[in-house]
Amino acid sequence: MKIREIGEFGLVDRLAAMAAKYQPSNITHAKLEIGIGDDAAAWRNTNRLTLITTDCLVQDVHFKFGEITWYELGWKALAINLSDIAAMGSTAEYVFVTLGLPPDSKVDDIVELYRGLLYLAQRHKVALAGGDISTSATFFINIALTGSAKTQLLKRSGAQTGDLIAITGFTGMAAAGLRLISNGCHAHDQDTPLRQAFCQPIPRITEGVEILAAGAHAAIDISDGLVADLKHICCASNVSASIDLTRIPLHPALKEFFVDEALDLALGGGEDYELLFTAKRSIMSHIIDKLEIPIHIIGSIEAGVPGNIRILNSDGSEYKLQTLGWDHFI
Amino acid sequence: MKIREIGEFGLVDRLAAMAAKYQPSNITHAKLEIGIGDDAAAWRNTNRLTLITTDCLVQDVHFKFGEITWYELGWKALAINLSDIAAMGSTAEYVFVTLGLPPDSKVDDIVELYRGLLYLAQRHKVALAGGDISTSATFFINIALTGSAKTQLLKRSGAQTGDLIAITGFTGMAAAGLRLISNGCHAHDQDTPLRQAFCQPIPRITEGVEILAAGAHAAIDISDGLVADLKHICCASNVSASIDLTRIPLHPALKEFFVDEALDLALGGGEDYELLFTAKRSIMSHIIDKLEIPIHIIGSIEAGVPGNIRILNSDGSEYKLQTLGWDHFI
Repeated sequence: MKIREIGEFGLVDRLAAMAAKYQPSNITHAKLEIGIGDDAAAWRNTNRLTLITTDCLVQDVHFKFGEITWYELGWKALAINLSDIAAMGSTAEYVFVTLGLPPDSKVDDIVELYRGLLYLAQRHKVALAGGDISTSATFFINIALTGSAKTQLLKRSGAQTGDLIAITGFTGMAAAGLRLISNGCHAHDQDTPLRQAFCQPIPRITEGVEILAAGAHAAIDISDGLVADLKHICCASNVSASIDLTRIPLHPALKEFFVDEALDLALGGGEDYELLFTAKRSIMSHIIDKLEIPIHIIGSIEAGVPGNIRILNSDGSEYKLQTLGWDHFI
Repeated sequence: MKIREIGEFGLVDRLAAMAAKYQPSNITHAKLEIGIGDDAAAWRNTNRLTLITTDCLVQDVHFKFGEITWYELGWKALAINLSDIAAMGSTAEYVFVTLGLPPDSKVDDIVELYRGLLYLAQRHKVALAGGDISTSATFFINIALTGSAKTQLLKRSGAQTGDLIAITGFTGMAAAGLRLISNGCHAHDQDTPLRQAFCQPIPRITEGVEILAAGAHAAIDISDGLVADLKHICCASNVSASIDLTRIPLHPALKEFFVDEALDLALGGGEDYELLFTAKRSIMSHIIDKLEIPIHIIGSIEAGVPGNIRILNSDGSEYKLQTLGWDHFI
């Protein structure tokens, strides 16, 4: 069925009905404290902070049709926004979806898109609260997501000299997955984690909340790449950092499919949506004990030139990374 | 200068610097009370309501390059969102902008876009608080705008039998302006109000606040067309309505340039972003006295079939309107 057969209002009615079905039943839930330049904006309402983040996925820029399912696309669109809220140590509340759809889009595809989105929303107690739908020659989905926090947030700017640097899970997976998908490789059981990292990233909401509660100093979600995002923290915090190359965790699937490039993918590949955070040594131990997913300490914050990142081999010599994150226009 | 010359971060830095300059200095500022199906969503934070609305403009759908300036485009993108907040009787606070830009977009154009947007933002004490920028084969701008209200809101669902129906300003102007622009007509002094209605609509924030404070029952902003949006109010309120054709105000410019079609444009043309509202007779008089812009009473709310709109000639016979608002996919 084509959207033109039921019209915009018909489509909205369907999606609203779906949203109502997925609506979590237990949602109870200002001056600008954080504006442009962190993972989300935040302002105070009496005794709580309200957060908003917004992020879009555009056809042929962030994904290609045929390489990702509609379900995965809906999941990912919300996941990358949840990830920004996670990087503030907060939980999410309401989601607003704007869709730009080619006039001949199929209803079933958009239903699948919302299914992926709403499944993840339900899992994180997020309610779809509005949006906008337009035609567009190029497909896009934009999401605005709100969050709520008691008093404190995990900012990019809190890193302190002497902090250890850690990441949740593994990096380089999504970039590797995208490489496999783009090359049209036939899917194997063994490469599933890589494909999944690109198509259905897991936002680290629970982990972000725990990391903040434990007393970590700074955090960011890894969207541009490990080194690029560490640079963002260092610039915002006026510190430098060193990464111990031997401590970068490499997932078995990454090593299996990208023998020579595994390390560069882990350092430079984007879109993993893992958390990169800094904390005192004692707090870091506490976090590692507390969280159920693997946490790897990969380096430390230093007092050097703000934003400078040194990647050190085991012999202390410096490793040169070729690519450093992603810029849309360069 | 092309964006690729300064990169995404360079562009963001520039826009952030502009935003800081335009930032209003006097900003002081949950359970979901209004979700999908009104002009904005709203939830409660202790003693206040937080609102969000989101709306996008897409190239070749909402506008064509060459027919609207970048400044006007930035203005309009914010104006249509402010209009949704106005229709709730609220004021706006924070704006989040997502841009999808063709890779060869010019920096100067985007600066102009933000200039229009930020000028209007400043006028309404709205702070730019974040956003996202991506490449996209098709240009689009999506805005998420928050608002804040004390306790009450102007909903679509509050209209009561016996209410009078009124509109701020004039309708049909934007549709007429678009017609002139699309036909490539040379601009005259006399048609400026029509062109301006399409390119730089005035959001009725002040009026919305007054209309709510005075005790009106329901409101909507006219984006789909007068009759279509009245239908939205009637459906949400479970009432019907009659429009007195002799009371539809026709702007002199509309009558001059569209002699035969002025009435149909006023009834069916979209994108005027005037407010359509209902209130008791006594309250309506108070509102008309209080507001500085023209308010016209055009009909009344009745107890008939929900959503039914009768348009009556002076002799009581029914007038048939050809087109009934805008649907993206039909």
